[in-house]
Parts: sequence; structure tokens; C-alpha cells
Amino acid sequence: MKKIGFLVLSLCFAFSACSTQTATTVNTSEKGTQWEWKNGTIVVQTPERPAGQKSVLGLTVPKMEVVRVGFVGLGMRGPGAVERFTHIPGTHIVALCDYEEKRAERCQKYLEKASLPKAAVYSGATGYEELCKRDDIDLVYVAADWLHHFSVAKCALENGKHVAIEVPSAMNLQECWDLINLSEANRKHCMILENCCYDWFEMNTLNMAQQGVFGEVIRAQGAYIHNLEPFWDYYWKNGENDKLGWRLEFNMRHRGDVYATHGLGPVAQALDIHRGDRVTTLVAMDTKSVVGKALVEERADSACNNFRNGDHTTTLLRTANGKVIEIQHNVMTPQPYNRLYQLTGTKGFANKYPVEGYALDAKQLSASGVQPKVDDLSSHGFLPDSEMRALIEKYQHPILKKYGEMAKEVGGHGGMDFIMDSRMIYCLQNGLPLDMDVYDLAEWCCLAELGELSMDNGCAAVAFPDFTRGEWNVVKGYKHAYASLEEEAASMEKAKAFTAKLKERGAKEWAAEKK
Amino acid sequence: MKKIGFLVLSLCFAFSACSTQTATTVNTSEKGTQWEWKNGTIVVQTPERPAGQKSVLGLTVPKMEVVRVGFVGLGMRGPGAVERFTHIPGTHIVALCDYEEKRAERCQKYLEKASLPKAAVYSGATGYEELCKRDDIDLVYVAADWLHHFSVAKCALENGKHVAIEVPSAMNLQECWDLINLSEANRKHCMILENCCYDWFEMNTLNMAQQGVFGEVIRAQGAYIHNLEPFWDYYWKNGENDKLGWRLEFNMRHRGDVYATHGLGPVAQALDIHRGDRVTTLVAMDTKSVVGKALVEERADSACNNFRNGDHTTTLLRTANGKVIEIQHNVMTPQPYNRLYQLTGTKGFANKYPVEGYALDAKQLSASGVQPKVDDLSSHGFLPDSEMRALIEKYQHPILKKYGEMAKEVGGHGGMDFIMDSRMIYCLQNGLPLDMDVYDLAEWCCLAELGELSMDNGCAAVAFPDFTRGEWNVVKGYKHAYASLEEEAASMEKAKAFTAKLKERGAKEWAAEKK
Repeated sequence: MKKIGFLVLSLCFAFSACSTQTATTVNTSEKGTQWEWKNGTIVVQTPERPAGQKSVLGLTVPKMEVVRVGFVGLGMRGPGAVERFTHIPGTHIVALCDYEEKRAERCQKYLEKASLPKAAVYSGATGYEELCKRDDIDLVYVAADWLHHFSVAKCALENGKHVAIEVPSAMNLQECWDLINLSEANRKHCMILENCCYDWFEMNTLNMAQQGVFGEVIRAQGAYIHNLEPFWDYYWKNGENDKLGWRLEFNMRHRGDVYATHGLGPVAQALDIHRGDRVTTLVAMDTKSVVGKALVEERADSACNNFRNGDHTTTLLRTANGKVIEIQHNVMTPQPYNRLYQLTGTKGFANKYPVEGYALDAKQLSASGVQPKVDDLSSHGFLPDSEMRALIEKYQHPILKKYGEMAKEVGGHGGMDFIMDSRMIYCLQNGLPLDMDVYDLAEWCCLAELGELSMDNGCAAVAFPDFTRGEWNVVKGYKHAYASLEEEAASMEKAKAFTAKLKERGAKEWAAEKK
Repeated sequence: MKKIGFLVLSLCFAFSACSTQTATTVNTSEKGTQWEWKNGTIVVQTPERPAGQKSVLGLTVPKMEVVRVGFVGLGMRGPGAVERFTHIPGTHIVALCDYEEKRAERCQKYLEKASLPKAAVYSGATGYEELCKRDDIDLVYVAADWLHHFSVAKCALENGKHVAIEVPSAMNLQECWDLINLSEANRKHCMILENCCYDWFEMNTLNMAQQGVFGEVIRAQGAYIHNLEPFWDYYWKNGENDKLGWRLEFNMRHRGDVYATHGLGPVAQALDIHRGDRVTTLVAMDTKSVVGKALVEERADSACNNFRNGDHTTTLLRTANGKVIEIQHNVMTPQPYNRLYQLTGTKGFANKYPVEGYALDAKQLSASGVQPKVDDLSSHGFLPDSEMRALIEKYQHPILKKYGEMAKEVGGHGGMDFIMDSRMIYCLQNGLPLDMDVYDLAEWCCLAELGELSMDNGCAAVAFPDFTRGEWNVVKGYKHAYASLEEEAASMEKAKAFTAKLKERGAKEWAAEKK
């Protein structure tokens, strides 16, 4: 009996030791993310939502007669944003902040030009902290370099401010989750400033897609294909020893699609991501780095043996509803600019680059409310000019109808920047949900780290997190929010009145300053 | 001591039991292929080359003054091939075979029109076996339905004939390996009839790529995007109960890119696949089937719950030299035809659809031997018309120079079919390696099964076999083979003489038949 007992005991110990050996290993990525293999797919850990914290799906806050804004980051994108805001009634540009005081001061000229009062100026490494603490700011608009997007946004949210962040708004999964938690805990908007969602072809095509012109859209494409060769040296350099500039340095240090949002934003909206569908699987594949490596070697005057970002990265995303999104990234090799925007539907097709076009047969075009003028219209070619114009006219997006003309005058990438800013302010003034929420932000910005994970593990499939933590199928279909005509008229009246008064004050102040 | 011994013994048994439990599991796929997981990548078993068998890399056979051909499969592609061959000197169309005797007989008219003697006719389920056994045939040209490509090719090779097979030339990995072994063991050519390699833009662009016009080509694209909606019902149906036809049925039963070769062929040549580089990793992702499913339900009058082929499939391939190839497949949804042919180079760019274009800056265009006429030529746009024409003129492929004009007259997808056939016969007449070998065949046709494996396992990465079994890096760079001017002139003279005589005989025979 003793022997048997002993045998059983030792066998038990042995097997339990084995079980621990075969227990799933938790790996930790370069970025500190914990993940495991599950049947050949990489699964990252999704942090539990803190008890009592609720999602911000469809978040609204009380109407704001005036949106008081502080701008942080006035290098490349920032000044244009300040200038655009001087055209938006019912806003008050309260503060300007940049690491370099001069750059902040330079933006005062836009205020002067618009007869708006001077803004307060902050600068240095932590100037934004003071800005965020002000009690007369509603919204912090962040256009700093990528490495500071998160720290500024965090500070704004912790100080009870809404925040709008230039792209990419989060640089890794941790930042995505932190922004989600900050937005949810503080009940504040955290919006990704994805301007490409507001471009003409994208908005009109979205409208068509939502009304079934293409049947069911089962596949979409997007990309950031833009040879940045002429631009690398314009990115701010942190002192003499910084030979690369922050953007080239970031590409050097990080693998994966680090700039996916211009491509992914518009198509994610067309595919109702977290409004009835969600991305479940990601796979990425990149080329080696040839041009990137050469750029560094030119500037650093030494060999570069580990330029992490491949010259051309492709990411594939599959959704719960069986759709596929393809996103590409190439900022290195010479070729025409291309965001690859394309929707493939069961009954029609839309493609933007290199030539904008739609493909629909006669039956589908008629069903979409447009009579073909030509005989035998087929989907084997793109619509002739007159049919295309008729289709666009019928499906012009209401947002373009409202802002399009002024946007073309105010400008900003042809106008889409202005429409984006205008929509954000409109929604805040009218107490509506914003066009993009913090879950969009996470979904569009996580391709970098998830892609890196995939590619560092032989292009393995990666399970895509549900950033809404269970609410991806609550809202059915992506929609822009609108106030009633009466409400928006009332808001606009107040907005204009405020701005008129502010300009009176501004004119006086600037005149006084000149004496 | 006894107790300790007993303990040690039982622990040993326990641990060895555990080790067997944790040994790698061999899985067997739907198609019978054995595979294992290795660090999240699917690895299929590569059969060892039988002892004494050598590769057919660069295989040549003695010059043939006349190439005697038997055609098997005279449904959709076959008759066109017969007709094209009547324009190629130094060939003898000896036999015609189709499941249906009438279809074989109908091809005699091409022979009559060209004053060539009648061919022998074979038919029925096994007619091709008799054809393959003939001792007066050098080459069997297979254009049967996909399900019979392999059986006919196998029979031809086993009977010591060279074989040319329409695409896709092998429907699964087993057929790929079998054809490789048959070609290697019998020392016979086994060529994939990939016509798109011979299209104008592809050949000229290949020539440019090989001479460095685009710098190093690091990425390439290809696709078969062709809405087959008007064509499904033209595919042969096996009796009254066959409601779908063989092509729709095949798509219904098989996942993965089942028709990858038109897209992959031309770019595989541009990227020197198994001539200095090789594909190491494959990942695939498809949409659900919406249109495919509907097509079956229309015809079968019942629900279709398992249409295996997604409406749109994307396959990504990474190579040993860090390059990426993307291949897409969509035969279902309405959109313009598109083979997506595109080369991304470190110094330039080439794109065929929807508009043919090249992007090179002034410096690179000059370095390529063409002086830009416009000022400030940049790669941010496509070359203007005159620069493009100058570039194409300078880099016109010698094969197009030789066959281009006649090809346009003889026709076949604009001429590329004729160039393909002409090149094959030229190489056989001159004792040269063919433009495409059996390893190309395997590499271009295996995307179907490997993609299915990937997608049935959550879009996992799949290790791409080395079909050359160790010789992928022996030949440095893809090349077309050419005889010396004297040799090819001599061959052509013999060829023409033979054909002239054959036509005399043919004319007499047909005249006699008319009486």
C-alpha cells in the first residue's frame, strides 16, 4: 500500500509538472503587450473595464454655445487648424501652445487677421499642462508630434477637457486602451482628427453605400501611399544631434502600418465598424526596408542595420460579418499619391485612384434612381461622365452640401480639413455625438502594433480586440448625427452673435496694440 | 533504495508519457495534405525527391525540326489554340481529342482553312489515353476542363510526351508534386500555358525591370478580377443533372485563389522566383460568399449553405529576399476587369489598370536612357504620353518585336496567346529551355490549396514549399532563352519547308475529300 501510495503521489506530481509545462505561455512583446498563441492566432490581452465605468458609445454632452479651444502643437498641422477655426462661428481660440514659444506666437497672426482677440501663449516641455488646467477651455486640439499625442491628450482628459487628436492619435495598444479608459472614466469626447473621412468622393460614396447603391459592400481598401522624400527634413528635430527628425526616427524604430488612419477611416465608416460589425482578425506583411534604410544612412552617416518599418506594408482585416479590409502603407518609394479608396459591393463598385469612378450596370443604376443615358450600360467599365455626375448629384452627402463651398475657400487639403473641424464644432454646439469616437481611434490606430506583432511572428493571424468591450453590435449602422433644423439654426445664431462680439473686442485690442 | 528506485522509475514513465503528449501533431487537410504547426506557421510536408531523380531546372531536349502536337480538350480554349497553331511553321497537328467527338471534328475546319492535313480524332472519357500513346506526337496540348488537366498531363508524361497545360495546370498540392516528379523522372517539359506573361505591357515592363528602370522591385501585384456573370452557363455541363457547370461547381467546392496564375505569372517572372528568390510565406484572407452562393441557389433551386470560395480572395506572399507579392481573385462581383499588374520599385513604379502608366522622376528617366521633354518631371504623377512612349520604345521586349505584329493579326486575347504558343514552339525547335518550367507551374497553382489551408485555420501563415527542392537560388535572374541568329534562321528554314510540304499534302487531301 505504501508503495502504491508513493507511486500515485509521484505520478501526480509528475503529471502536474507536465501540465504546467504545457500550460499556455504568456509572451510579452517589444512594446510590453502580453499575448498568447491560440490555435495559431496571436491573442492579446484585453484589459477589463473597471467596475462602474461605462462605454462612451454615442456619448453626448450638454450643448455648448461657444466651444473654447486650446491648441497644442503648432508645427506642421497646427497653424492650419488655428487658421481654419478663425472661420468657424461660436468658437473661441483661448490658448496656443508649442514646445517653441515662437511657433505659438506666430499663430497670433491668424487671430489678428480675423479680428479675434489674442490668445494666451504656453511653451516649453510642459506648457501644455498649464493650458489643460485652465478652467476656460472646453476642447484641447492636439497637433504635436506623434510622440506627444498621448501625453497631451491624457493631460487634457484628466483635466476634464474634451480632446481632438491629430493622426495617428495613439501609437500603441497601451495608449489606445488608456485613452478609452480616460474617455470613459471622465465622460469626455476623445476624437481622432481623421480628415480623409470628409473628402468629397469618400463622403458621396459613403452616402451611396449606405443607401444600397453597391448592394452589400463586402470588401474595402484604403492606404497611405505618399512618397515623403521631399518632406522628411521638415519634421522637427530635437537639437543638433537629431539627424533624422521625429517622423523618420519613428518609422525607423517601429514596424507595422504606423499611419493607417487616412486609409482605414473612410472605409471603416462604410463598413459600420462597431456599429453592427467588427474586425476580428488582422494579418500584416511588409517588404524589407531599402529606401528607409538608405534615408537614415544618408543622414546619420553610418550603417543602419535595423530600420524596422518595411518600405511597403500591407495589412488585411477580416470582420465578424465576413468582410475584408485591406490597408497599405508606403511613404518611401516613388509613385503617385494614392489612398487606394475602393468599395467592392455585390451590385456595384467604387474606386478613387488614380481616376474616380463607379461601376454599375443599367439595372443597378436605375434601381439607384438614375436613368442611364447610354444603351447597354454594363459594369465591365466605369460609368460615363454624365451618368457619374448624375449619380453624384443624386447622392451628394448632406454634409458636403452644407460645408462644401465654404470648405473649398477656407481650404486645408482641398477643404476636407475644414469640414472635419466644422462638423466637430457643430456636434459640440448641438449636444450631439461626434462623428468619430474613441473606439474608432483605437481601431484605426492599433494596426501599427498589431501588425508588428503579426510580422514579428511570421505574419501570424492576430485576434483584433473589441475595444468597445461588448458593444460593437449595439448601434446598427454608422450615421452622422444631425440636430433638427430649428435647433441648429438656434445654435448657429448664438454662435454668430458670439463671434461678432468677439471680433469687436478683438478689433479693439489689436488696434490698441498697434499704437 | 527500493523506494527511490521506484520513484525514479515512475517519474520517468510519467515524463515520457507527457513528452509523447506534447509531441507535434500531424494534421491532415481536407485535400489529404499532411501539415504541422511550427511557431504559429502551418508547414506542409515536402515529399523527398526520389533517389537518382534530378531537377528539370533549365531542362533542354534535342532540337525538333517539327513539333508534332496532339490537342486534348476542345471546348472553350482548345479550338483557338488549334487555330493559332495553323499559323506556326514547323508544327504538325496530328490529333484532336475531346470528350465529345463533334467538338474534336469541328476543329478540322481550321486545318482545312490552312490547307493542313486532317488530324486523327479521339473522343470519349479515355480517348486521350490512345492519343498519348501515339508514337508520332511530341507534345500534348491540354485545354480540357480543370478536373481533367492532371489526368491527361500525367498520361502524356508517362508516355514520354512533353505537355503544355492550360491554367490552372494543377488543382492541388498533390497534383503539383506529381507533375514535378513526372517531369523530372521522364525528363520531359511540363509547361503552364500562362498567356498573360506575354501581354504587351507586362513584357515591356519586365524588360524595364530587368534593366533596373525601377531600381530594385520590392513589391508586385497581380489578380484575376473578372466578373464571370455572363459566362458561367457556357462551361460544359455533365448531363442534365449538372445545373452549375464545372467551373461554378469547382468554385463552390474549393476555397482559396483557384485562378491565381494570370496575376502571379508575370510578376513572379519580374521577381525572379526560383531564379534567385523564392516565396517563403503565404497568408490568405477571403470575404464571405454572397454572389457565389446566390448563383448556385438560382440554378440549383435550393439553399446553398457552403459555397467555399469567398467572393473576393486576397493572398499575400513574402519572399526570401524580403519582397511581397499580392494576388487577388474575384470572379463574382460587378466591376471592370483588372489583373492589378503593378511593380513597386525603389526608384520607379509601373501600373497597368485601369490606365497603363509609369512613374519615374527626371533623374531616373534619364538614367534609364530617356530624356524627359517636360521640366520638373516628378514621380508624383505618371509619365506624360510622349515620355511614356519613348520609354516603351526604348525597352520594347525583343519577343514583342519578333512576334508582336503577327500576334495582333492571329489574335487570341489581343495576341498574347499566339506569342505564348510561338515562344514554346521556338524553344522546342531550337533545343532551348522553355519560358516556364514545372516549378513555375507549381508555384503559381498552389495558391489555391495553401490559401485554403491558411483561411481554414484563421488566416494563419503557411510556409511555402520549395518546389525545386533546394535549387531556387542556382539560376540568377529570370531570362528568356534565345538561339543564335544563325541557329534560329536554320530552324525557321526547316520549319517553313516542312510546313510548305505539309500544306501541299493537305491541299490535295482536302480537294480529294470534296469530290
